[in-house]
Amino acid sequence: MNKVYLMTPGPTPVPDKIRRAESQEIIHHRTKEHSEIFKRVSDNLKPIFKTKNPVLTFASSGTGAMEGSVINTLSSGDKVLIPIVGKFSERWVEICEAYGVEVVSVEVEWGNVVEPEVIKEHLDNDPDIKAVFTTLCETSAGVVCPIKEYGEIIKNRPNTILVVDAISGLGACDIQNDEWGVDICVSGSQKGLMMPPGLAFASVSDKARGFIEHSNLPKYYFDWKKALKSWEKADTPYTPAVSLIVALDEALKMLNEEGIDNVLARHSVLADAMRAAMKSMGLELLSSNYPSNTVTAVKVPDGVDGIELKNVLDKKYGIKIAGGQSHLKGKIFRVAHLGYMGEFDVITAISAIELTLKGLGYSVELGSGVRAAEEVFLK
Amino acid sequence: MNKVYLMTPGPTPVPDKIRRAESQEIIHHRTKEHSEIFKRVSDNLKPIFKTKNPVLTFASSGTGAMEGSVINTLSSGDKVLIPIVGKFSERWVEICEAYGVEVVSVEVEWGNVVEPEVIKEHLDNDPDIKAVFTTLCETSAGVVCPIKEYGEIIKNRPNTILVVDAISGLGACDIQNDEWGVDICVSGSQKGLMMPPGLAFASVSDKARGFIEHSNLPKYYFDWKKALKSWEKADTPYTPAVSLIVALDEALKMLNEEGIDNVLARHSVLADAMRAAMKSMGLELLSSNYPSNTVTAVKVPDGVDGIELKNVLDKKYGIKIAGGQSHLKGKIFRVAHLGYMGEFDVITAISAIELTLKGLGYSVELGSGVRAAEEVFLK
Repeated sequence: MNKVYLMTPGPTPVPDKIRRAESQEIIHHRTKEHSEIFKRVSDNLKPIFKTKNPVLTFASSGTGAMEGSVINTLSSGDKVLIPIVGKFSERWVEICEAYGVEVVSVEVEWGNVVEPEVIKEHLDNDPDIKAVFTTLCETSAGVVCPIKEYGEIIKNRPNTILVVDAISGLGACDIQNDEWGVDICVSGSQKGLMMPPGLAFASVSDKARGFIEHSNLPKYYFDWKKALKSWEKADTPYTPAVSLIVALDEALKMLNEEGIDNVLARHSVLADAMRAAMKSMGLELLSSNYPSNTVTAVKVPDGVDGIELKNVLDKKYGIKIAGGQSHLKGKIFRVAHLGYMGEFDVITAISAIELTLKGLGYSVELGSGVRAAEEVFLK
Repeated sequence: MNKVYLMTPGPTPVPDKIRRAESQEIIHHRTKEHSEIFKRVSDNLKPIFKTKNPVLTFASSGTGAMEGSVINTLSSGDKVLIPIVGKFSERWVEICEAYGVEVVSVEVEWGNVVEPEVIKEHLDNDPDIKAVFTTLCETSAGVVCPIKEYGEIIKNRPNTILVVDAISGLGACDIQNDEWGVDICVSGSQKGLMMPPGLAFASVSDKARGFIEHSNLPKYYFDWKKALKSWEKADTPYTPAVSLIVALDEALKMLNEEGIDNVLARHSVLADAMRAAMKSMGLELLSSNYPSNTVTAVKVPDGVDGIELKNVLDKKYGIKIAGGQSHLKGKIFRVAHLGYMGEFDVITAISAIELTLKGLGYSVELGSGVRAAEEVFLK
């Protein structure tokens, strides 16, 4: 038997109900039946995004919606500000540079975030900055950025929009798009939404729509003017990924029945428990100040090989986690508690980490991590 | 009971086996397990495309791969030739124009094709034409273009590539990409491949790869240089649509077990039967000379309302067909015999058309269309 536990920050486990919905007989996308589903899905995405604005759905990975938010709001030669806190914020830089957008970046060591005052200073000194592209949960470092504070700085500036990559964050880390003044919030299906990959999303504020009117960067498949126009009629400009839309209908039903704030509270408890367990075992978190509720990044302790740790967890115990990326390869491991996850998924992961560390010669009291997590659950 | 028969040119019915594969537990995409599936899928696409070249797979609708074939091979200001034979060839024009590519177009009445000599004349007179963008099966008109003949004209010109939209054609109308000299062949999952929508494909010849090296149009998500590099390692630059890839693995197994030439022969018989039935009922095909084996476009007879015909077929008999698009709205109806289709799917559609036409006051001998189809099957 090889029982597998998917504890990676996406794809995350897909509940049986959602997979069954995905496997229903296919329907045609230019029908009343599909329109009704698409309309319901569009409505039910709103509470998850905490917005009254349209949330567009695309057949692509999340990166497609990231690219869309650059090419639909900016024009050639525009200047933008990008706080870099890990691998995925670097993607914003790459996309902007691919389209001749001038990038001003502020970089911090992985595990930290760019302080809101730094953003404010840049915007005060350079009124030409058209957009700030940032990240809710930076998966590579397991940190959550202060989006609310960024929003406070940006929302009253008519010439600057705030764009957030919430691909791994949505549904685990709170993001109140309307309340906080986020203009575009991008996400993907295979994370907090408990879906297979293949769908991308973007909420679009009125302010962002003003930018879209004037953008001159070239686009076709990801043309949001067309997408917004179709969206009004519960349609898409190009063939939607029908089976994934039908599955999403089920996923959103589940999430909205639980209620987004309960979903977020559940993730908060699971993340607290994971962090308490890691600390109780003498391990150090990569980010002590800004740990994300999506994924916990833990430093590999001295004397343990990080690659081997990941391999033993996988091969011996069936626990799929993520390793470190780029310069942190082998130096951290990352355990996700994202999506279709409850207390005992976290207990399973902690127990397997205890067993693995013990096996690799690290001194750990068996059961101590599990105990720390249980104490959090009982609070 | 409301038994539904999907006879539209995409989405086409998805066999139960494929839908079951799609609903399996999700796996992570950066694993040996996924690489093996992706590698097998990539290998098994080759006989379907009749190519030895890489066939790239994208998480998007087919239009994404159409856009990709423009932005990865051309540079700003390049000139291209586009034969327009219906709605989908117009899409090539729109994409090129969105990126500042100069379009020379040749238009014919829907139902006809652009003769190879016309293509040759343009290329002879204008050696600056970098690419010809054309369509295997033009779904809106039910015609199949002479790709083989276009290939003969283009394959020995080192400065021009032939790009074919085979989205609705692949697996129904023959396209011998290597043999005929097609440089890029684009397709989508929800047609002849018997899959849900959400995946796009593109085969890429060595000649096309040379063009890709020098293209300067901006791109990110659909960057084929990156896609080709990942493809070599059985990987994708961005998260693939895992559940659809797993389903595709099953679909390709089914198609290759039948054998692509048998698949094409089956479609040829079904299309012959449909055409014979329509003619026997006194109906006229939109295209008498170039009818496609994907979809049959039939002129709505005098005295019958084309919109009503489509509605009765749908509401009374559960048969989903396509109507006419653009200026042919209400003037033609289109019945697909594409993908997971056998003799009795065609018989069902023909019988329903007989019943519907009779009900709408058109003089038809009941059973005559079915008889004509059966005669084709017995040959």
